[in-house]
Amino acid sequence: MLTVRKVIEVDKALNKVLEHTKLGDVEYVSIEESDGRYLAIPLQADHDVPPFDRSPVDGFAIHTADTRDVSPDNPVELEVIEEIGAGIVATREIKAGQAIRIMTGAKTPKGADAVVMLELTKEISRDNKRYVVINQPSKSGDNITFKGDDTQRGTLLIEKGRRVDPGVKALLATFGYAKVPVIKKPVVGIYATGTELLEVHEQLQPGKIRNSNSHMLISQIKKVGAEPKNFGNLEDDFERCFEAVSKALEIVDVLITTGGVSVGDYDFLPEIYEKLGANVLFNKISMRPGSVTTVAEFNGKLLFGLSGNPSACFVGFELFVRPWLKTYFGSANPHLQKIKAILDSDFLVPNSFTRFVRGRVSFENGRLLVSSSGVDKSSNVTVLANSDVLIILPGGEGAYKKGTIIEILLLD
Amino acid sequence: MLTVRKVIEVDKALNKVLEHTKLGDVEYVSIEESDGRYLAIPLQADHDVPPFDRSPVDGFAIHTADTRDVSPDNPVELEVIEEIGAGIVATREIKAGQAIRIMTGAKTPKGADAVVMLELTKEISRDNKRYVVINQPSKSGDNITFKGDDTQRGTLLIEKGRRVDPGVKALLATFGYAKVPVIKKPVVGIYATGTELLEVHEQLQPGKIRNSNSHMLISQIKKVGAEPKNFGNLEDDFERCFEAVSKALEIVDVLITTGGVSVGDYDFLPEIYEKLGANVLFNKISMRPGSVTTVAEFNGKLLFGLSGNPSACFVGFELFVRPWLKTYFGSANPHLQKIKAILDSDFLVPNSFTRFVRGRVSFENGRLLVSSSGVDKSSNVTVLANSDVLIILPGGEGAYKKGTIIEILLLD
Repeated sequence: MLTVRKVIEVDKALNKVLEHTKLGDVEYVSIEESDGRYLAIPLQADHDVPPFDRSPVDGFAIHTADTRDVSPDNPVELEVIEEIGAGIVATREIKAGQAIRIMTGAKTPKGADAVVMLELTKEISRDNKRYVVINQPSKSGDNITFKGDDTQRGTLLIEKGRRVDPGVKALLATFGYAKVPVIKKPVVGIYATGTELLEVHEQLQPGKIRNSNSHMLISQIKKVGAEPKNFGNLEDDFERCFEAVSKALEIVDVLITTGGVSVGDYDFLPEIYEKLGANVLFNKISMRPGSVTTVAEFNGKLLFGLSGNPSACFVGFELFVRPWLKTYFGSANPHLQKIKAILDSDFLVPNSFTRFVRGRVSFENGRLLVSSSGVDKSSNVTVLANSDVLIILPGGEGAYKKGTIIEILLLD
Repeated sequence: MLTVRKVIEVDKALNKVLEHTKLGDVEYVSIEESDGRYLAIPLQADHDVPPFDRSPVDGFAIHTADTRDVSPDNPVELEVIEEIGAGIVATREIKAGQAIRIMTGAKTPKGADAVVMLELTKEISRDNKRYVVINQPSKSGDNITFKGDDTQRGTLLIEKGRRVDPGVKALLATFGYAKVPVIKKPVVGIYATGTELLEVHEQLQPGKIRNSNSHMLISQIKKVGAEPKNFGNLEDDFERCFEAVSKALEIVDVLITTGGVSVGDYDFLPEIYEKLGANVLFNKISMRPGSVTTVAEFNGKLLFGLSGNPSACFVGFELFVRPWLKTYFGSANPHLQKIKAILDSDFLVPNSFTRFVRGRVSFENGRLLVSSSGVDKSSNVTVLANSDVLIILPGGEGAYKKGTIIEILLLD
């Protein structure tokens, strides 16, 4: 049965999705397991970095007053009263005429106001005592990294919702987060619908194709940092689909289905939403590919009805599911980064709907160029493996020529 | 003891590292576990995509000859002899005057040379037979996606050494890779040296700091796709360090140490390489930070002696360890992507060594700008959390002013 659907703009559709957002619960994981997780708290420096004045070089900690008048012709000999490596605190205080041998990273001893680099000194011994010979003056503060030089206590280092990467990890370690508070991963269920679908391990049969969407979605879900739960394939059978979707909803935080959202006789998702009593947020968006992308809400959970076409499925996930997940993780900016780039190929056929073309960026002397990754059809699967951006071509009468500045969404 | 080291250029140092490269062994993992792994084989299409002519729309498969002269005033009625959903193959062949109701994704039936969209038709029934009324002509090939339209059999889809991401995963599924041949993860050992180092869970003590390098390296190693093995911290004690490094070398593919590579009395790595009988590839590079970065080879295994300074350690990994690992994975391009960008801040102090400044990119109307992430000191740890590129400032007399086009290395 053909019903007329109300078309809405991409931005409006996304807003509707994000009206049903929520922030995930907090859990603690070991710092080793925290990669790719989202911080549940902002990270503030609870101590100065470095936490004490220290030497950034190997050399001798001295009193600069002792070197005031020295020169190659008039060197000074300072008695070396102690030797400290990094991690060792000097037991003695430097007095006039004294020095302490100090290694990189060690705390500068009391009484010292500079460090002279090893390379600029000579050591001698006399009467069973060690002396360092210095033949040029130092300024107070020379070769000392002062407490707090890197970061002062109380500084906000990382916003809540930031994803743990090597740089963030270094800070977590520095500030003693052996256990890291992160947002729990939401479970994202996946059902692929369509009698034509084979499992990956099955041989091709006439009229059938292997299900690639579920595996692609598993990757997309993991890439965002959520937990995929693959329920497999469903044949086009209303009762079985309804049963499967109902049960899946009980155990997931979000459910993605692929296929079955179009207007065909075997497109059962609209009927399933109706029988569930779900609130359909929209079922037609003025975009290509994926205009039939449908999102419904049931008992506070979202059902993303993505197209069965691989490219449309991919784009639907990135435009709608990803921002929902990022918001769940407390990300300050849940959207794909949108920037301007210079079109490096022509798009001459106008389209009334906004197009999201799978593309690739390249760089040329500080300029950012973008071109299509290949055949731009919603059913195309090979093009996805070579795309790192989505090129936004707003709908309307116009063609887009090479050289035009357009907006793109970064996928990585 | 001070020894004079021979300084070499960054590119030469990297070449020496890559002279000791090898390709990892192959193992098979399930498609579900293949994310982030490197393909051990190129991926070629072993069948056409789609594997059969199919309908991209819901509608009626017809003989176009039957619609040659039709118009709204002169419609044709075709008998609907069968109905097929996706995955179902028609049992009958279309003859003149006949049509088959077809759903999106279904194989076009024998005898049909076009599909008319459902929206443009009307169905009626008469004498217990179904008819479709069509009032405009179709061209042969209308609404048929032909076998191989997306990809033809034999096409090289993905190079060997590509990392599995959502797009690659879709192709693996399409071509039936339930088990995926990937390169085994090399085990990368990590030892942090320095008596000043505390474990992450320990309270700060005078003169000591928490070891952040090992945790940062764990993240960097995982990000490249290898397997980190954290051996923990080592105090500055020659015998214990020698013992630890010797034993670690037996169980890892690559060993990273941090600290102990400088010229200080407690910098034991040079002596350890000597006692091992390792072949030191270089121990001084004309770069900042990390000029003392040392790489040695022992029994075919590399020992990367990175600086203990966090920023220097980070840069040392990205410039030398990462390319080695990527080569191990068979990556066609093991180097960080080097592109040109426009400097958005001044670097006025010249340096005789090439500097790798932690920076951030931004985009402005198709232009790529880059600026420093913060204080540029090798000991700085906070700056790393906000960097996505390394700005290359070649050594020499000159200053680099805002607006200059310079080269940068992309970290992501």
